[in-house]
Amino acid sequence: MADQAPTNRTKLTRAPDRGHHDRETIDAVLDAGLLCHVAYVFDGAPVVTPTLYWREGDRVYWHGSSASRMLRQSAGTEVCLTVSHLDGIVLARSGFHSSINYRSVMLFGTAEQVPDEEVAAVLDHFIEHLAPGRLETLRPPNPQELKATTVLSMPIEEASAKIRTGPPGDDEEDYALPIWAGVIPVTTTLGNPIPDPRLTVGIELPPDVTALYQTPWARPTTD
Amino acid sequence: MADQAPTNRTKLTRAPDRGHHDRETIDAVLDAGLLCHVAYVFDGAPVVTPTLYWREGDRVYWHGSSASRMLRQSAGTEVCLTVSHLDGIVLARSGFHSSINYRSVMLFGTAEQVPDEEVAAVLDHFIEHLAPGRLETLRPPNPQELKATTVLSMPIEEASAKIRTGPPGDDEEDYALPIWAGVIPVTTTLGNPIPDPRLTVGIELPPDVTALYQTPWARPTTD
Repeated sequence: MADQAPTNRTKLTRAPDRGHHDRETIDAVLDAGLLCHVAYVFDGAPVVTPTLYWREGDRVYWHGSSASRMLRQSAGTEVCLTVSHLDGIVLARSGFHSSINYRSVMLFGTAEQVPDEEVAAVLDHFIEHLAPGRLETLRPPNPQELKATTVLSMPIEEASAKIRTGPPGDDEEDYALPIWAGVIPVTTTLGNPIPDPRLTVGIELPPDVTALYQTPWARPTTD
Repeated sequence: MADQAPTNRTKLTRAPDRGHHDRETIDAVLDAGLLCHVAYVFDGAPVVTPTLYWREGDRVYWHGSSASRMLRQSAGTEVCLTVSHLDGIVLARSGFHSSINYRSVMLFGTAEQVPDEEVAAVLDHFIEHLAPGRLETLRPPNPQELKATTVLSMPIEEASAKIRTGPPGDDEEDYALPIWAGVIPVTTTLGNPIPDPRLTVGIELPPDVTALYQTPWARPTTD
């Protein structure tokens, strides 16, 4: 898990004090999320699609239907995968310094298709990420489902994290103004499970579902 | 506010029943968000950056430092702007049908730089979107700040929304399995305001900040 030397694309030109290139920080931001945005070039123009993702060691994975245009087009091409968490609204004493607190990661690289023989195993890891402990309770995938699923991955190599925390950074002379300033925390939380209306009578909420509240992406962070 | 005829890029090839091209649906998804992801092409490769955005009528706006590489590179070029809200974890009886509930919008078009003489007015709209009622309480922007800020915009023309709601869609024969299935709602909420440690003693929390809890992007949606 080597730290990432900044490249021309991952060196932060704006607010460089918010930038991080160490793997511990990058992995923490990645592991706190469920939804990423993958950009690729389609007929010369940029396209960015939201999709579920997960990390295994030094790689990030995402998946979809084998008939998906996004997956078909981006396999073997350069992509940019970005994960962003909104943590707070920063209300400064001027519009100019009003901002947000956030954690984000950008990864650059080539999307590689996961070979057929490895798809079942990496999809198991995805279910374990989505709902730890749930995998062994589910109806296992059949060959048609595995064939219908394409998984792409990219190494965590050309990567950077950008993080803003803390109170507003106002102009020194503005602190004396009679204006309220501060941060409104933004938190993503899980609500009470809604059972499928077609759930068989007598099936209780299992421990793996209640454990969801302890998964990394469901844990609120504090500033 | 004409509805959007699907183009080759906005016609949904996967799960077309989740697609919407009417402006009411597109605007509702846009107005419920604060952070978007803008993709552009940089030296032939895709880049996607998270950034704040706001809608005014038939256009979407985003802004940043005039020194920002993203803004410099994307002005006058084709971009793709995507807004995504994660609404729930859909736990099916198989991994294959496990999914998420979400609302997303993709816009395609050319990023246009807002002329200097209009920047002050559109930034006022941004502050009104971020925190309605706050604008008139703030120290106004000065000429240096306006010069240091670049605003880009694009029309809502080539656009589509994609929405998934409701319970899992399992294979018919799987409903009889003794497996819990359902949806875990995901909600983004605002926490209690954290006053700036440098806040002048005696400044109370103003109504515009408490009103933040009623802004569209802070209102949780129900499934």
